[in-house]
Amino acid sequence: MANRGPMIIDGLVISKWSREVFADMQRGGLTAANCTCSVWEGFRETMENIAAWKTWLKENDDLILQVYSADDIETAHAQGRVGVILGWQNTSAIEDRIDLLPLFHELGVRIAQFTYNNQNYAGSGCWETRDGGVTDFGRDLIAKLNELRILIDLSHVGPVTSRETIKISEQPVAYTHCSPAALLDYPRNKSDEELKFIVGKGGFVGFAPYPRFMPKGDETTLEDCVEAMEYVIGVIGEDNMGIGTDFTQGHDADWFDWLRRDKGVNAMRVPGQGTVSKPAIGFENLTKYPAMIEAMEKRNWPSERIEKVMGRNWFRFLREVWAG
Amino acid sequence: MANRGPMIIDGLVISKWSREVFADMQRGGLTAANCTCSVWEGFRETMENIAAWKTWLKENDDLILQVYSADDIETAHAQGRVGVILGWQNTSAIEDRIDLLPLFHELGVRIAQFTYNNQNYAGSGCWETRDGGVTDFGRDLIAKLNELRILIDLSHVGPVTSRETIKISEQPVAYTHCSPAALLDYPRNKSDEELKFIVGKGGFVGFAPYPRFMPKGDETTLEDCVEAMEYVIGVIGEDNMGIGTDFTQGHDADWFDWLRRDKGVNAMRVPGQGTVSKPAIGFENLTKYPAMIEAMEKRNWPSERIEKVMGRNWFRFLREVWAG
Repeated sequence: MANRGPMIIDGLVISKWSREVFADMQRGGLTAANCTCSVWEGFRETMENIAAWKTWLKENDDLILQVYSADDIETAHAQGRVGVILGWQNTSAIEDRIDLLPLFHELGVRIAQFTYNNQNYAGSGCWETRDGGVTDFGRDLIAKLNELRILIDLSHVGPVTSRETIKISEQPVAYTHCSPAALLDYPRNKSDEELKFIVGKGGFVGFAPYPRFMPKGDETTLEDCVEAMEYVIGVIGEDNMGIGTDFTQGHDADWFDWLRRDKGVNAMRVPGQGTVSKPAIGFENLTKYPAMIEAMEKRNWPSERIEKVMGRNWFRFLREVWAG
Repeated sequence: MANRGPMIIDGLVISKWSREVFADMQRGGLTAANCTCSVWEGFRETMENIAAWKTWLKENDDLILQVYSADDIETAHAQGRVGVILGWQNTSAIEDRIDLLPLFHELGVRIAQFTYNNQNYAGSGCWETRDGGVTDFGRDLIAKLNELRILIDLSHVGPVTSRETIKISEQPVAYTHCSPAALLDYPRNKSDEELKFIVGKGGFVGFAPYPRFMPKGDETTLEDCVEAMEYVIGVIGEDNMGIGTDFTQGHDADWFDWLRRDKGVNAMRVPGQGTVSKPAIGFENLTKYPAMIEAMEKRNWPSERIEKVMGRNWFRFLREVWAG
């Protein structure tokens, strides 16, 4: 059962968790993934989600293990199991109390997106009409995230709030799952300037092969994705980029509607309807990481670049931010 | 027990509620007051506060009654009891769900401050370093507050968020308790321009005789307060101004610290320490409304102006906003 393949780290998976999904991840050779356990949920519901994860981790310990440190990622790789990094796509879980954050850190939350699409106490999301920047609460929250060495994710965060967070944060931060705006002008995509700015401050970019972010939409192939990755590499180099598939395997249209609504229950803020079934043609489920590698090989990527982009870059970066 | 005095309406009382406080209000000839039942509290705690109010209203029905409409204020006046208008100093009670607001309306909440001192989902407070204005959530919230005819209060709201709310709201809005910045430059005080702007849009100003907002601080007398009211009248006329004492009778230093912290639990945002024992020298407790009237008389206010400022203006305005 030992994993003889390369280290593969996915910067964002938000699938409908089940043994089947865990088995797909393991069959896909995935070493570790940032697994979302909170989007709009508050304190109690996020704690319930984490409690569910603890049960899944126990019941499926032949397939998955929890990642508290970079060493745990190495263990996952050596054992051919999938490392689960608990992550947030919002900071709603602490509600109005920064002093709740250490509880989540101790339970294993290692990545936290600052806000999701809309306004929260800390700042503005990328779908907010106007970005008011980092609030006073947000500034204090950044300090606490830095102190706990929780990686700050800015993928769904607005441009002003993102820029300020990158400046304020003493730890490097990441867009764990995003696509370049140069290829498609879309509020969730990041401009070349933004990509350069985050990397210039030591940060990281996870490329998202997500059809809504790509010029060809649902017709996007894995080869198109690799081409887009080459574009990003042209902007920021090949050492600070990884993948963040944003894979939503198993979720239905109601769940997508929940994502699109402001805080999950109010007005729709994100255009579109229905489900997004896969990140790209050729990547129909979480077993398909080898197909992505094949697409890279087809475009004559040297093996060193493939290894870096598929996992080694994420590994180096996470070890740095988590300090071990 | 019939109240033979003028109608007295206080735009903001946030005392430590007890039978003693209710008795003081009744002895002071108070007809009705906006009684705070939520500052930093979320849904559950605000509901608990309202449940406590329902018990107090029942147990002290010789002294107080709940105000659901302007008619109830007239009843209170006729019966010499004190009308309790349940009010919020924040919209934290609905947390992230606008669809919870109608529940509170049905339970009697009739005045809601948009945000308290700091950032919330709807906008920025007056103590926030930067005011990001009304958020998308805030815009939807204004529409719902308008639909339910809940009066929007902007006293502790930032200048940009205030100005935008005044423009967006289809109902007139109020600063229920504030002082003029022309007399003391202080983040909580309102400039002449701001006072004119809200009144120009049909809005209302409750003058707060609160020492921290006044040039002489703790040395402020009732006569100084009446002089400051004359200043405000000079700016906006005498028909759109009332009083909002911001009376905190009975609260201790821990409670004031809770108010000063961001969302009640995080970093201190408001300068100062300790308690504020009274709104002004001569107004030591809630029995002292007659002393305020005396100070007005001493400064030769005509009785019509006194009646308007002490209650008739608030009454007319609340009837208009609540539509009955």
